[in-house]
Amino acid sequence: MLEKVANGVLKGDVRSIARAISIVENNESEAEKLINILYPHTKGAYIIGLTGSPGVGKSTLADKLIAQFRGVGYNLAVLAVDPSSPFTGGAFLGDRLRMQSHALDRGVFIRSMGTRGSLGGLSPAISDAIKVLDAGGKEVLLVETVGVGQAEVDIVSTADTVVLVLVPGLGDDIQVNKAGIMEIADIFVVNKADREGVNRVVTEVRMMLDIAYGKKKNEWVPPIIKTIAEKGDGVEELVDAIGKHREYLKESGALQQRRSKRIKWELENTLQHKISRYLEEYVLHEVEVDYLEKIMRREVSNYAAAEEILGRILRKEGVVDEC
Amino acid sequence: MLEKVANGVLKGDVRSIARAISIVENNESEAEKLINILYPHTKGAYIIGLTGSPGVGKSTLADKLIAQFRGVGYNLAVLAVDPSSPFTGGAFLGDRLRMQSHALDRGVFIRSMGTRGSLGGLSPAISDAIKVLDAGGKEVLLVETVGVGQAEVDIVSTADTVVLVLVPGLGDDIQVNKAGIMEIADIFVVNKADREGVNRVVTEVRMMLDIAYGKKKNEWVPPIIKTIAEKGDGVEELVDAIGKHREYLKESGALQQRRSKRIKWELENTLQHKISRYLEEYVLHEVEVDYLEKIMRREVSNYAAAEEILGRILRKEGVVDEC
Repeated sequence: MLEKVANGVLKGDVRSIARAISIVENNESEAEKLINILYPHTKGAYIIGLTGSPGVGKSTLADKLIAQFRGVGYNLAVLAVDPSSPFTGGAFLGDRLRMQSHALDRGVFIRSMGTRGSLGGLSPAISDAIKVLDAGGKEVLLVETVGVGQAEVDIVSTADTVVLVLVPGLGDDIQVNKAGIMEIADIFVVNKADREGVNRVVTEVRMMLDIAYGKKKNEWVPPIIKTIAEKGDGVEELVDAIGKHREYLKESGALQQRRSKRIKWELENTLQHKISRYLEEYVLHEVEVDYLEKIMRREVSNYAAAEEILGRILRKEGVVDEC
Repeated sequence: MLEKVANGVLKGDVRSIARAISIVENNESEAEKLINILYPHTKGAYIIGLTGSPGVGKSTLADKLIAQFRGVGYNLAVLAVDPSSPFTGGAFLGDRLRMQSHALDRGVFIRSMGTRGSLGGLSPAISDAIKVLDAGGKEVLLVETVGVGQAEVDIVSTADTVVLVLVPGLGDDIQVNKAGIMEIADIFVVNKADREGVNRVVTEVRMMLDIAYGKKKNEWVPPIIKTIAEKGDGVEELVDAIGKHREYLKESGALQQRRSKRIKWELENTLQHKISRYLEEYVLHEVEVDYLEKIMRREVSNYAAAEEILGRILRKEGVVDEC
């Protein structure tokens, strides 16, 4: 069954891709097997992270971006991630409505998802879904998150290009000074630029950028782009800025660095998770007999017991040499 | 230095105990050494958890409880825990003022603390502080938390007797139906019982208890005690109920069970934490060279790489036998 889904994904079959994403959302062990099959076939899709407070118009902007990328022939996918709801299990109604103009376009795949088994940090389900889409032939992945909390920052910070969407009059402190989002944004968008206060937002962001980047040369300084997503105004400039950022990343070697960092982060998460499961399933069951009694009798502390257990379950250096 | 602090604690010296708690709050590796020394000298102090929404009068109630326990000669300590503030580094002014009547009493030790290095779950700093106080000769520990969120539930759920404080007119849903606090309460207190609506709160709690405990016999059914902490009304009944609950736990064997569960939880936490540190400090540094490149070249997935690394660092069954 898994083989069949995997084969479908590799052929770019939309229903197989949808099925595969449901698997990575809901079934941890199947997800692992699936990714083991698909990962060698990934090509390194370009990932664009799109974030900003609720109500800034991210979905409308995504809709227009889709049209632009499709216009130049890219095979595209959109992942709308809602970290606050681990069990969306489908698509938001709003996204569906807004993006329905692309629903019949075979070159665009749109999916909303929750974040399986993630207690903060990078969600395994999102990482897996990105690999599924990449293996399915998608060249550009737009990862949209619904807020600007820590979970959203963790998700978009693994993107190649991070786009932060602001609007005039939403209370700038609230939009901007949260969870370190300013530091990871590569492109700033001020949407609804026909509203009052647009220049104030632009000025504030520019001042902040001047302070942060003022004296550094040869580095990417995030541009600030005004858009009116509803009308499509400024969307071409945004696509252009994304293209320039991509060029910068490639030429400077920063793309390789970012991806290496993402891989490291994923590997660490996977290891942590596997070890936790190993502890729960095997070790703690075994050691209960040995150590809980000892701690109860106050012969060893929890720390000393943990050290002894680690000595038993971990191969530390020198141990193998003794054989 | 640590030896000196530990010796002071074992003699019941107040300044040494205060010093020791600062150590467990702020210095992970020193904390471990200190607990390794102190733990064998703990006697199994009785731990009372006191929780409830802000403004229900927990500190005033704690103050009156102190007086009662001191009246019968118990050596007592109060830990006021604020999970939302990991760096209190001292005492809340409010607690200090409210509890100042006991400040010169050598038999009472009062301390506010944050929760070092805890991302939810049981805080190592609180566990350690409890062991310090226990080794310092305290017979009864009153652990007070400032809210009723998940962090508070995690903290008080390791207590021997959990007291949940409610008041009339605070919005019962908000007080009660949060984070599973109802399920872990052993005694309900309705404080400010001279306020309107007191009987409604009592009735609601009793109905809920009837549903939960209706058909079970031989089990502890949590009593509901009305108090007016300011005047001291009902405090004797509360102390009496705590005493009865303690008797019940001892006679039924449930005390042993609770403490065994607490020890297991602590051991699991400590193990998880030590393994995380081991991974960060040694393994990931080593494996970067080996595996990140392989993943980059798409030869293995993050899952397959994690499996291989686990094979290298964990002694799984059979491995030792091969030697």
